[in-house]
Amino acid sequence: MGKDKGPSFNLKTPKGTKDWCGSDAILRDRIFTTIADVFKRHGGTALDTPVFELREILAGKYGEDSKLIYDLQDQGGEICSLRYDLTVPFARWLAMNPDVRNIKRYHIAKVYRRDQPAVSKGRMREFYQCDFDIAGTFDAMIPDAEVMRIVSEVFEELGWNGRYTIKINHRKILDGVFQVCGVPEDKIRPISSAVDKLDKMSWADVRKEMVEKGLDGAVADLIETYVMNKGGRELLNKLLQDERLTANASAKAGLDDMALMMDYLEAFNVLDKISFDMSLARGLDYYTGVIYEVVTEGSAPAVQSDAPEAEQLKKASKKGKSKNPEDEDRSDDPTLGVGSVAAGGRYDNLVGMFLPKAQIPCVGISFGVDRIFSITKARLEREQNAKSLRNSEVDVLVMAFGGKGFTGMLKERMDICQKLWSAGIKAEFSYKSKPKPQQQFKAAEDGGIPFGIIIGEDELAAGKVKIKEMGLDKDHPEKEGVEVELASLIPEIQARLAKKQGGSVVSLAQQLQGVQV
Amino acid sequence: MGKDKGPSFNLKTPKGTKDWCGSDAILRDRIFTTIADVFKRHGGTALDTPVFELREILAGKYGEDSKLIYDLQDQGGEICSLRYDLTVPFARWLAMNPDVRNIKRYHIAKVYRRDQPAVSKGRMREFYQCDFDIAGTFDAMIPDAEVMRIVSEVFEELGWNGRYTIKINHRKILDGVFQVCGVPEDKIRPISSAVDKLDKMSWADVRKEMVEKGLDGAVADLIETYVMNKGGRELLNKLLQDERLTANASAKAGLDDMALMMDYLEAFNVLDKISFDMSLARGLDYYTGVIYEVVTEGSAPAVQSDAPEAEQLKKASKKGKSKNPEDEDRSDDPTLGVGSVAAGGRYDNLVGMFLPKAQIPCVGISFGVDRIFSITKARLEREQNAKSLRNSEVDVLVMAFGGKGFTGMLKERMDICQKLWSAGIKAEFSYKSKPKPQQQFKAAEDGGIPFGIIIGEDELAAGKVKIKEMGLDKDHPEKEGVEVELASLIPEIQARLAKKQGGSVVSLAQQLQGVQV
Repeated sequence: MGKDKGPSFNLKTPKGTKDWCGSDAILRDRIFTTIADVFKRHGGTALDTPVFELREILAGKYGEDSKLIYDLQDQGGEICSLRYDLTVPFARWLAMNPDVRNIKRYHIAKVYRRDQPAVSKGRMREFYQCDFDIAGTFDAMIPDAEVMRIVSEVFEELGWNGRYTIKINHRKILDGVFQVCGVPEDKIRPISSAVDKLDKMSWADVRKEMVEKGLDGAVADLIETYVMNKGGRELLNKLLQDERLTANASAKAGLDDMALMMDYLEAFNVLDKISFDMSLARGLDYYTGVIYEVVTEGSAPAVQSDAPEAEQLKKASKKGKSKNPEDEDRSDDPTLGVGSVAAGGRYDNLVGMFLPKAQIPCVGISFGVDRIFSITKARLEREQNAKSLRNSEVDVLVMAFGGKGFTGMLKERMDICQKLWSAGIKAEFSYKSKPKPQQQFKAAEDGGIPFGIIIGEDELAAGKVKIKEMGLDKDHPEKEGVEVELASLIPEIQARLAKKQGGSVVSLAQQLQGVQV
Repeated sequence: MGKDKGPSFNLKTPKGTKDWCGSDAILRDRIFTTIADVFKRHGGTALDTPVFELREILAGKYGEDSKLIYDLQDQGGEICSLRYDLTVPFARWLAMNPDVRNIKRYHIAKVYRRDQPAVSKGRMREFYQCDFDIAGTFDAMIPDAEVMRIVSEVFEELGWNGRYTIKINHRKILDGVFQVCGVPEDKIRPISSAVDKLDKMSWADVRKEMVEKGLDGAVADLIETYVMNKGGRELLNKLLQDERLTANASAKAGLDDMALMMDYLEAFNVLDKISFDMSLARGLDYYTGVIYEVVTEGSAPAVQSDAPEAEQLKKASKKGKSKNPEDEDRSDDPTLGVGSVAAGGRYDNLVGMFLPKAQIPCVGISFGVDRIFSITKARLEREQNAKSLRNSEVDVLVMAFGGKGFTGMLKERMDICQKLWSAGIKAEFSYKSKPKPQQQFKAAEDGGIPFGIIIGEDELAAGKVKIKEMGLDKDHPEKEGVEVELASLIPEIQARLAKKQGGSVVSLAQQLQGVQV
């Protein structure tokens, strides 16, 4: 059927989408599992929403970016669109479930944006987000601090080993600073968005943009004295002594929040991962309190839409913008230019957009898995940890060898496989009834399968099989394999697998322990 | 922002879709993990394809059902549709990757069908499929038999404990039977589809349909002598001695395949799960070899589109169609009427539809997770295994109690929590700075959290904390909790968690062991 059609198909995936397979899919899956385990450890409840929503649910949530929403065709019935993020569906769910007044929910799923894709940078039209949010009315800053602790646990368990910074700031501090400096109310958002570019533009350029936006130069200069600061408790204490600032209600409220936050971060043992960065502003309008963004060492800032600019940045970084001597040989480092790897903040008014009487404060974080994937993969490749980049997780290949008149021992191989499977061991055998020895060895080598079980007719008749660890040095005592009783095959292979700490057993953190970015 | 709009939103999910949350999401996730673990154990490689495909990829694959495909709106650029199943995207991927000539791939993902939804029966427009397929040219029936072994492992690990049947048949046997009986070539498909209804219609009704389709009554009667048979090896041996049948090339090829299959199923120790059912035909045209369908005891046949008919069937089943005396009190059993829980077969020509020169034979299975979920949930509820139906997996709630002048010990609770998290223990604490004792106990009870860690100011100063197992009998020696050294808190709580075998540790099979359908 269909044979007469010929290859008239356009054999590709739609623009900005891709297939994930083999070692990439396995590694991404391990990243998901690692992140989900942290979410569950903190009491997270899984929420899964449909991939499309009624179009009116998404309307008016994304400002200019609404043009990037994928619409479903009107085929009769409801008008729907693919989800743009996981936050709006969460807020819709909260508004729909009035008995839920507080929840820690997590959601790992694909979202859709009709953006100009940049596949090499990992900017896709279909991509994964991993979100954790805490909804509910609680005492100030406690859930906010726990979200920071979650960020730290995720990156530690991904093996990043402290090599990341959580930049935090507070919308109320930022608003207070702008008010104190004399920014007119209607200019606060545009000026805020100019400040947000300080991670990829010089102050001079940002100042220029402010003035172009109609701000008085003197006001801009006053802003500089605040937003160029970053640090920890000492910066907070300096600001708390700034009487002009503390006289402003918004700034005072933000600074008090920040003081509480730092106390809690200390109790959670993550204060050393934090940088209080007064230039952090974040784009989305709906943030109302603390905001944060996670960057990793060596990662250049995110450049969203301009490829030549990214190139320039890479060059600038090579020319000595960074003092890290390792930068020189990193020009083709895929971890460069990936921007922030997680971001979020407090948004107390979003649920109210769906149901004004159900004002539920929320705070959350979204992990950018595609960027985390690129960095983690590059690290593993640098470590030449080939085992972790296998296509499947098979631990044992069951092989049969024999001389003249060899039957192939197919059913015997099947029988040993079923015993291994019943014991939960990942095992394969050749689908040929009479496979050649070299074919079987090649399959084990090609697949990076760590162990072979070799059966022969005489040996099996005597109740014995051979276990052979692949890839041993030629003078290793077990190079040629070890003969064991068939009756004790399962514990024998289990012991060797446990000792080997195979790829499927070791955590990402263990694999990457001590690996430098 | 948006506050002036009021609640003009239609607060719902699109028709035929739903949110999954809490204990349902956890249980479904555990079913996915159980199934994926079996797939990996057999060397499965994960493949993840985009949720939408170019529309031309899906065209001409689903016959009449093509009208059920969701189309994306033409917003400029490519014309796309949501995937309808996972098989066609897999065939597209194989055709796109000419270096892959053989692979075991699995895929767990949502598919989309604009069908009339029947939410109470679990027929949704967005639903999950869990597919495992083996592609490649191998010696006959070896991968086919491994797929049957996979089916058996999945249901055993889901705790079904043998209470399911894998019905198998072979397209070539069926075609041969029709030819031998004298069915004209152009009537073979419609007659085959009539035979397929024998699991929900009497022979008399099926015969009537055949005659209405223009078949000679005598031919129909001859068909009856074949298709009403079901059994195992003895049936196969009987057919192999039927000279009229073995003289037919198609039937002979199918019977030889089936003989090989049974040998291999015996070696894989799953022959006892199989019923060779000559009435099984399966709808899809693309099957070319062995076909199979898994049913569970007590589950009525699938009724696709007619609710009254389903009611009738339930009544028929109650009236004694089945001899199982337990049927009487099962009229509201959600596991009734769910039909097959997994199905599949061999399809050797599908990849060729995309790339005629790349003929890659395939065999696979698709698990219907929504149906499996309904049955598993009903079993757990019948067992009143409440712990497994919790909303989150938290094992420990850290609480503080104190008398007059009690500070709430917030940072102390935070500190103990972070120690627990660092040890990988799932823990929570109240987000109030001064929570009341009864509030904290209630939170532990409501959440089904098995352990409390109770701290008090004097005790903590003396380096001690109390571990309290929730829900102990009032005369249990540890009812009031056990005081332990703070320094040994982690191993103390880990030991208790291991002993308790909490919900997150026990496999579904263990939880459901011995539970009757």
